[in-house]
Amino acid sequence: MLRWLTAGESHGPELVAILEGLPAGIPVSLDDIRADLARRKLGYGRGARMKFEQDELAISGGVRHGLSLGSPIAVRVGNTEWPKWQEVMSPEPIDPARLGRGRGAALTRPRPGHADLVGMQKYDFDEARPVLERASARETAARVALGAIARSFLSELGIELVAHTIAIGPVRVPEGRPLPLPADVDALDADPLRCFDAETSVLMVAEVDAAHKDGDTLGGVVEVLAYGVPPGLGSHVHWDRRLDSQLAAALMGIQAIKGVEVGDGFETTRRRGSAAHDELHLSDGRIVRSSDRAGGTEGGMSTGTVLRVRAGMKPIATIPHALPTVDIATGEAAAAHHQRSDVCAVPAAGVVAEAMVALTLANAVLEKFGGDSVGETRRNLESYLAAIPDALR
Amino acid sequence: MLRWLTAGESHGPELVAILEGLPAGIPVSLDDIRADLARRKLGYGRGARMKFEQDELAISGGVRHGLSLGSPIAVRVGNTEWPKWQEVMSPEPIDPARLGRGRGAALTRPRPGHADLVGMQKYDFDEARPVLERASARETAARVALGAIARSFLSELGIELVAHTIAIGPVRVPEGRPLPLPADVDALDADPLRCFDAETSVLMVAEVDAAHKDGDTLGGVVEVLAYGVPPGLGSHVHWDRRLDSQLAAALMGIQAIKGVEVGDGFETTRRRGSAAHDELHLSDGRIVRSSDRAGGTEGGMSTGTVLRVRAGMKPIATIPHALPTVDIATGEAAAAHHQRSDVCAVPAAGVVAEAMVALTLANAVLEKFGGDSVGETRRNLESYLAAIPDALR
Amino acid sequence: MLRWLTAGESHGPELVAILEGLPAGIPVSLDDIRADLARRKLGYGRGARMKFEQDELAISGGVRHGLSLGSPIAVRVGNTEWPKWQEVMSPEPIDPARLGRGRGAALTRPRPGHADLVGMQKYDFDEARPVLERASARETAARVALGAIARSFLSELGIELVAHTIAIGPVRVPEGRPLPLPADVDALDADPLRCFDAETSVLMVAEVDAAHKDGDTLGGVVEVLAYGVPPGLGSHVHWDRRLDSQLAAALMGIQAIKGVEVGDGFETTRRRGSAAHDELHLSDGRIVRSSDRAGGTEGGMSTGTVLRVRAGMKPIATIPHALPTVDIATGEAAAAHHQRSDVCAVPAAGVVAEAMVALTLANAVLEKFGGDSVGETRRNLESYLAAIPDALR
Amino acid sequence: MLRWLTAGESHGPELVAILEGLPAGIPVSLDDIRADLARRKLGYGRGARMKFEQDELAISGGVRHGLSLGSPIAVRVGNTEWPKWQEVMSPEPIDPARLGRGRGAALTRPRPGHADLVGMQKYDFDEARPVLERASARETAARVALGAIARSFLSELGIELVAHTIAIGPVRVPEGRPLPLPADVDALDADPLRCFDAETSVLMVAEVDAAHKDGDTLGGVVEVLAYGVPPGLGSHVHWDRRLDSQLAAALMGIQAIKGVEVGDGFETTRRRGSAAHDELHLSDGRIVRSSDRAGGTEGGMSTGTVLRVRAGMKPIATIPHALPTVDIATGEAAAAHHQRSDVCAVPAAGVVAEAMVALTLANAVLEKFGGDSVGETRRNLESYLAAIPDALR
Repeated sequence: MLRWLTAGESHGPELVAILEGLPAGIPVSLDDIRADLARRKLGYGRGARMKFEQDELAISGGVRHGLSLGSPIAVRVGNTEWPKWQEVMSPEPIDPARLGRGRGAALTRPRPGHADLVGMQKYDFDEARPVLERASARETAARVALGAIARSFLSELGIELVAHTIAIGPVRVPEGRPLPLPADVDALDADPLRCFDAETSVLMVAEVDAAHKDGDTLGGVVEVLAYGVPPGLGSHVHWDRRLDSQLAAALMGIQAIKGVEVGDGFETTRRRGSAAHDELHLSDGRIVRSSDRAGGTEGGMSTGTVLRVRAGMKPIATIPHALPTVDIATGEAAAAHHQRSDVCAVPAAGVVAEAMVALTLANAVLEKFGGDSVGETRRNLESYLAAIPDALR
Repeated sequence: MLRWLTAGESHGPELVAILEGLPAGIPVSLDDIRADLARRKLGYGRGARMKFEQDELAISGGVRHGLSLGSPIAVRVGNTEWPKWQEVMSPEPIDPARLGRGRGAALTRPRPGHADLVGMQKYDFDEARPVLERASARETAARVALGAIARSFLSELGIELVAHTIAIGPVRVPEGRPLPLPADVDALDADPLRCFDAETSVLMVAEVDAAHKDGDTLGGVVEVLAYGVPPGLGSHVHWDRRLDSQLAAALMGIQAIKGVEVGDGFETTRRRGSAAHDELHLSDGRIVRSSDRAGGTEGGMSTGTVLRVRAGMKPIATIPHALPTVDIATGEAAAAHHQRSDVCAVPAAGVVAEAMVALTLANAVLEKFGGDSVGETRRNLESYLAAIPDALR
Repeated sequence: MLRWLTAGESHGPELVAILEGLPAGIPVSLDDIRADLARRKLGYGRGARMKFEQDELAISGGVRHGLSLGSPIAVRVGNTEWPKWQEVMSPEPIDPARLGRGRGAALTRPRPGHADLVGMQKYDFDEARPVLERASARETAARVALGAIARSFLSELGIELVAHTIAIGPVRVPEGRPLPLPADVDALDADPLRCFDAETSVLMVAEVDAAHKDGDTLGGVVEVLAYGVPPGLGSHVHWDRRLDSQLAAALMGIQAIKGVEVGDGFETTRRRGSAAHDELHLSDGRIVRSSDRAGGTEGGMSTGTVLRVRAGMKPIATIPHALPTVDIATGEAAAAHHQRSDVCAVPAAGVVAEAMVALTLANAVLEKFGGDSVGETRRNLESYLAAIPDALR
Repeated sequence: MLRWLTAGESHGPELVAILEGLPAGIPVSLDDIRADLARRKLGYGRGARMKFEQDELAISGGVRHGLSLGSPIAVRVGNTEWPKWQEVMSPEPIDPARLGRGRGAALTRPRPGHADLVGMQKYDFDEARPVLERASARETAARVALGAIARSFLSELGIELVAHTIAIGPVRVPEGRPLPLPADVDALDADPLRCFDAETSVLMVAEVDAAHKDGDTLGGVVEVLAYGVPPGLGSHVHWDRRLDSQLAAALMGIQAIKGVEVGDGFETTRRRGSAAHDELHLSDGRIVRSSDRAGGTEGGMSTGTVLRVRAGMKPIATIPHALPTVDIATGEAAAAHHQRSDVCAVPAAGVVAEAMVALTLANAVLEKFGGDSVGETRRNLESYLAAIPDALR
């Protein structure tokens, strides 16, 4: 079983994450993790912070000479802005006379669409900073770092992930367009919105420009594909062992995600049964599916075809034309705090979603195949595939 | 922390479920559980089995004189058809000469859209019965029984749940129609499709009739509402503590669910930021939200407004006009086994979804408020609400 | 990961247990489970209830034709005394006029050494029955039933368990006596105290007779041995993955256990380092350990030698000459309720300990080797053993 | 539910730990954590490393201005020796020509009593360094750091912990000596072996001196006391919710622990029932226990009296006069690697045991009382205590 925890506040000294349960012998490259952290900042419509937010990466444990040790892996992602924030976010008490000034001023105008108000209620805070510092999407950098390691593990087993943007606001890739393959990732990263359909990408850029001009923000939909997944990850025997249930939790657990789909998702609910499933046919003596409407899962298990899941992201809630709120210090109507200026973070959400899917699949692989070294896991996976009777292939 | 397991096969002697972690003193009524089990069979378009499938209910432990004891609660839902199946599904070995005949004949034509094929691959079975017996939606009766108990607990705390059908195939309740309240549950149960909008219900009935005539099946969308949820269930501090993540897992963990939404879900992804969130305003000195687009969660926490989540169900995969498959015994193309004749199970899915939401909320309540007796949990909840400063209300 | 829950009260209709996570294809025999349930009642010094307490066993799910299905396994152990208790322990409300009479009279004199008093405080009960019904050791029958299934799984992998009594009160098997082997289990079951040393067994019988004559009770120590455990179960990488930590939790989680040891345990703490460990030597080109002081674990992992753990049981707290207590109904000193008449339950505790060790090892095996069918788990185990380099054998 | 993970190798750059689930508002002081880390190095008979091993402490997240934020808390404990080890333990690949030399030479002589040999088998390593780096007791510094935070939380609720040494090798504090109170901790820290009985301490020092002279090592027994624990932590309703089971796992999960006791532990197994339990009496209208043989738990729940648990530590396995082993590189008999020179680490184990008990109790408190701020948890605890009826006090 894979376990992992992340810690760290948005303007704190650093993010920290620990990943426990991976086998030994997985290649872990700081450069690869850095590359993924950089991909997390991609996307047309990102604001200033993305540019100056540099990620100082360090590995504190669990890796030696480029290979995992089987022990918990700890990564740190430093905040290069920390010197400006070290008083505001100091873990140690500071001179009370210096409290609440400048950057440290109490944030008393909770932002709609954020954790601010309910976080204060729940944790008994009288301002929003202690809430928003953790609720911020900055935390996803820690997940992306761990996701890069999980992806390396999966890659050793022949499993490759691809995330791409399929909608920005109302602009959506038309049905039937080809899916990107692992070889297309560089091309995706080069696209302004990580969209695989060139025509749609142009429309998406125009949509972002229009929203920017209007002082508004945009959401969208990302899709994560996993190639090379063996049949039989997850299980039908108990609800929480269903791979689709676990993927839904992983994706809905990303900040700002409001909807999750497996395969064709809600579109499937509108089809009739005769046109909603993936028929089984023989082809060269093998059983093949005639379509991939289900997204690569049946009965909560991976089928061995491409896995396909989607996450729908709401538009960024910090709007340049700030939303109405209430100032809890004065008890009067006010405009919400405005802290950043991205128009659209959907491409980044794709990279985060890819990390969450990677962590979920890595866990599912270990549940089915066990293994304390990559060689052992791979051997178990291969012997399983080899043992499937011809009649079931 | 609430833990629960279910067991039992579709045609086995019974379903069994154990629920561990509830406080003592919760009213547990066999009649109430039976009523929920009956609601699970509601719905226009259900086939014959629903009618003869009677649920013999028993409580094996954890309840005395109508109140929970704080110990694990075990329920059993008997299968009145068991006498017909006791040889096919006998837990004990049977005379090999009797194996594989009649009802016990090997199921070698895996059904598209079901766990059949991948289940055989994963668990090394040479026919589909050992898979489909557990993958069947019959198992949800066990969840509904536990959900009824969780609902009784929530009800003691002032939290009430309502599930309703918002789409059957392409027929959907128009935007802006009123949401049903707890007082409307009887009316919902009386509607052929558990739809709260009378005009849409008529269209849904027609859609079911049309599909039935065509030998086809239908899916749809259900929505679960929770009234009286206090602010602060779930947490923004870690992804898997987010209430929306937990709800997504619970709903996607139901058989045939392919999509999950919180609040307006994917519709939100198409809106601009200025029209996608719930503004905060003052009303009679209280902070109120001007809308409920978010579905009652912000930052992964309940906000205290009505919680609203949706699950999209694919059409039933066992189609009267059977789908093409392969007979693994002969290696030739074949038509899939056909085992039941429902056209549409969406209203039942709403009842199951309600149960899953109830169990998820009960767990979230215990995480925040603890308590080993209902009185203790209620006291902790009330003292929390009372302690929220006026400025944050 | 293996998950399991038990439910049921001592005088309720039945105990129920669900075990989730075992692979398919494990032989599950009702007769074998019954045999273990009967072994749980063995032992010189058991009282009347053990004799009339017959265990009606049923399997509700997860097993077909004598083999596990991979789905959750549910077992029920019926209470043949139920007709006498059905009013006192009715899950449904009863006529208030009949409450609190006869067997149902409120138990207001909490017994020292039992959960009674603190259970009432914690769960807000005004009498002890709702507590003692669950705290009773009757619940261990459910664990023994599941343990029998876990043992069958382990046996398929070549792992065999043996439990034996090493002390009754002050009477203890001398150091250096041989350990029982799997082939000795029948002989152990035939011994009045499940002690493998015949001379000591005679002394133990005399000790039980003496305590019985004095109206007193006895505790003791049991040891569980596991043969055929492969090296590498558990892990040093995190405290809660250590096999010895998991075994300690499993054994201390049995009613009345107050101490747990791995290998020579506390005796080891009194030795010097040069005489406390198991040296490594070469023998016929293989690495062998010169002793087994450590009990078959190093660094929290099984070493591949015989696993050996111990549990120390306090004397039965329900003493025939009842202990002083307070009647909470009157607020006056009183004698504790006396509900049964065993002098010593240590041999039974050995059978329960064996079950808990079996469940713990089954979980550890699945963590390391995975597998959804017994064949897959066995294949993975064998390929791991075959892959250990000669230099490390 | 409290979750926590630690990471880091003995000679790596640092240890890292994350603790998730604590409420907001807990005082967290770097100085207090440093003080506990220093206490972990106390004890007569510690070797050179303890002196030069300085702990550079940092908090990466979860704490602001001296108070916990409710978000995960991350601590780092730097290794001041890192410059010497940065090549040997580099997370990044190094020049192969530099591999395996000096400090980086392959460790091919697995040490008896350590994880070395089985760790290599399990994780497929050809030398012991990747194993021993994590199996080392250095890791316990991370637990002590988290334990200090858990203790601060408990202290806010009136719960105080004390650990003391009760045996060093064969030298043991006689029965009946007084137990140390929270006020005695400074005196304990000042004692060479953290023993509360001055006469025994002198004998312990002599024992350490004798072992040192003989080139040998010593183990012993520590006891952890918790004062102010409310009744009702843990539960009798399921084995793994028993507080004693959880404490046993926590203590046995410490490196080198081979035995665990609750209260009088194995001594209780030798007593008769009439002399083994804690009788209930009235005193000034309150129910009191006449003794504390049980160690403050009944039925797996805290009783409200002092909690008392023990852990038995084996002697250090790295003996100056090295134990026989096999060199796996040559396949010949050899002497084990010797890496440090402590004679006895029992006093330090007491500090680690205290940390593990603190983390276990903090979790149990949150399970029963919930709470997202210290004030909320405290309010729930106090209202529970106030609601216990007079008759049950």
